[in-house]
Amino acid sequence: MEMRVVNSMNYEEFVSVFGNVVEKCPLIAAAVWTSRPFTSLCALEKNIGDFIDSLPRSGKEGILRCHPDLAGRDLLQGTLSPESLSEQNRAGLTSLTAGQRSQLSELNASYKNRFNFPFVICARMNDRDTIIQQLSSRIRNSPEQELQISIGEVKKICHLRLLDISTQVSQATKL
Amino acid sequence: MEMRVVNSMNYEEFVSVFGNVVEKCPLIAAAVWTSRPFTSLCALEKNIGDFIDSLPRSGKEGILRCHPDLAGRDLLQGTLSPESLSEQNRAGLTSLTAGQRSQLSELNASYKNRFNFPFVICARMNDRDTIIQQLSSRIRNSPEQELQISIGEVKKICHLRLLDISTQVSQATKL
Repeated sequence: MEMRVVNSMNYEEFVSVFGNVVEKCPLIAAAVWTSRPFTSLCALEKNIGDFIDSLPRSGKEGILRCHPDLAGRDLLQGTLSPESLSEQNRAGLTSLTAGQRSQLSELNASYKNRFNFPFVICARMNDRDTIIQQLSSRIRNSPEQELQISIGEVKKICHLRLLDISTQVSQATKL
Repeated sequence: MEMRVVNSMNYEEFVSVFGNVVEKCPLIAAAVWTSRPFTSLCALEKNIGDFIDSLPRSGKEGILRCHPDLAGRDLLQGTLSPESLSEQNRAGLTSLTAGQRSQLSELNASYKNRFNFPFVICARMNDRDTIIQQLSSRIRNSPEQELQISIGEVKKICHLRLLDISTQVSQATKL
């Protein structure tokens, strides 16, 4: 992506384009805009990661709590963000058998009951089988471990969403 | 409001009810849920204020950048949050003369150009005349002063939104 294009965006354009690289947290994109110009997409990504890391534990938990359940209510009700819908779709979560849906629903509920935030995983780096495996396994972690792993997954999701935007911006500027 | 009701909410219910007490920043409500139980509505409000104060300068600017312009594009396009629409409506910003709209639009643009965030004011504690007066006056502040004043306004908006929710929850629990 031409960083010239990104660095020339005012904050409204920037938040409109990058506002959901961390799910439902436009505050984060809006905050890192302060650090422009960015020398590269990696530099922008690092700024986002550093901002997340600078938050108190409650803030990190807050980020996780802005994420929808996988194959959960938002998917059923059609209220997922476009990014989440696409990610859950690619991972095969929109075409679960009734048995898989029920298994995932029970695991999600147990996970949330234990950790007080939803199970977050970079769906595009997984499929429905590994997602169910990971959920079954991670539910046995300590809250401390699980917070750290989940924030790592938030950063992976952010990385892929940034790459998508980069492709879109590059194509648009070529037109 | 019966704090018993609030304290019994899981994080999904809590974010669904309190997610927009700071405009487009559900992360903040989702973060302070960690500090439950709250002894009073004031205690909840103090937690929100403390979380905002704990953010780095870029984070506070990020909060401001999640706010719409007053009588701006979101109002014209019908994309304001229900809370913002109601607040801008009560302040008379939905029934400006063409001259007032044009004046406000120019002042908003100058303000954003100077401070790199939008003019934020608790519209319900003002009317269109005092809003235009305040905007004309605050534009001469230093960036440091203006950040502080604007975050104070975010907290006033949050206070009134919390009171609204409190009334709604009280009425709902009486049914």
